[in-house]
Amino acid sequence: MNLPLGHHSLFDYHGCAREMLTDTEAIRSTLLAAVKEAGGTIVTDTFHTFSPYGVSGVVVIAESHVTIHTWPEHGYAAVDVFSCGVSLDQNRIRDRIAGALQAQRVEERRFARGMTPG
Amino acid sequence: MNLPLGHHSLFDYHGCAREMLTDTEAIRSTLLAAVKEAGGTIVTDTFHTFSPYGVSGVVVIAESHVTIHTWPEHGYAAVDVFSCGVSLDQNRIRDRIAGALQAQRVEERRFARGMTPG
Repeated sequence: MNLPLGHHSLFDYHGCAREMLTDTEAIRSTLLAAVKEAGGTIVTDTFHTFSPYGVSGVVVIAESHVTIHTWPEHGYAAVDVFSCGVSLDQNRIRDRIAGALQAQRVEERRFARGMTPG
Repeated sequence: MNLPLGHHSLFDYHGCAREMLTDTEAIRSTLLAAVKEAGGTIVTDTFHTFSPYGVSGVVVIAESHVTIHTWPEHGYAAVDVFSCGVSLDQNRIRDRIAGALQAQRVEERRFARGMTPG
């Protein structure tokens, strides 16, 4: 049996509220709350506002991470969630962000990383 | 025509030199050099060593990122590279890391993010 070492999800948020996608502090608060609710242990985080607009952020979790990049002009945000083990509730993170961004549509792609002989 | 807003690559490194996978400073230096060589503008970075071993790191580039998580006990490292536009040379990052980790095998998966009407 092969077991993955990591689980990596790409979440795409379409039709988001544009004012949310430029609000760096609200996005940071949302991601930190989402990680805590999902059972993650936050190591550090870094968020940046880009000119003319758009937010990039990373939350480093123990051996895991969540990132976000926003395009306010397209009402779009790209998120990825990487975790080892199965303790981080990725669906909770996905849904918490969707609610905060008021996304009309969420796409998801999920991948196993590092398949090793188990 | 639809244009992607972002390009996201997952690189999996197998059969790496185990002593490299525990060397946080060497991994940080490798990723920073790789991003610069690839044409990226570094915003910030954060790297952490985990107990009993293993390294996690993130380099935040302008509207982009590179992350790494290592499993020394499996000779394995998981990297993801996200970039908007086409200016970041993701292949260069892939190869620079492969060389530094002395990886015997590299897998790659590439995805378009945020397809919008162009």
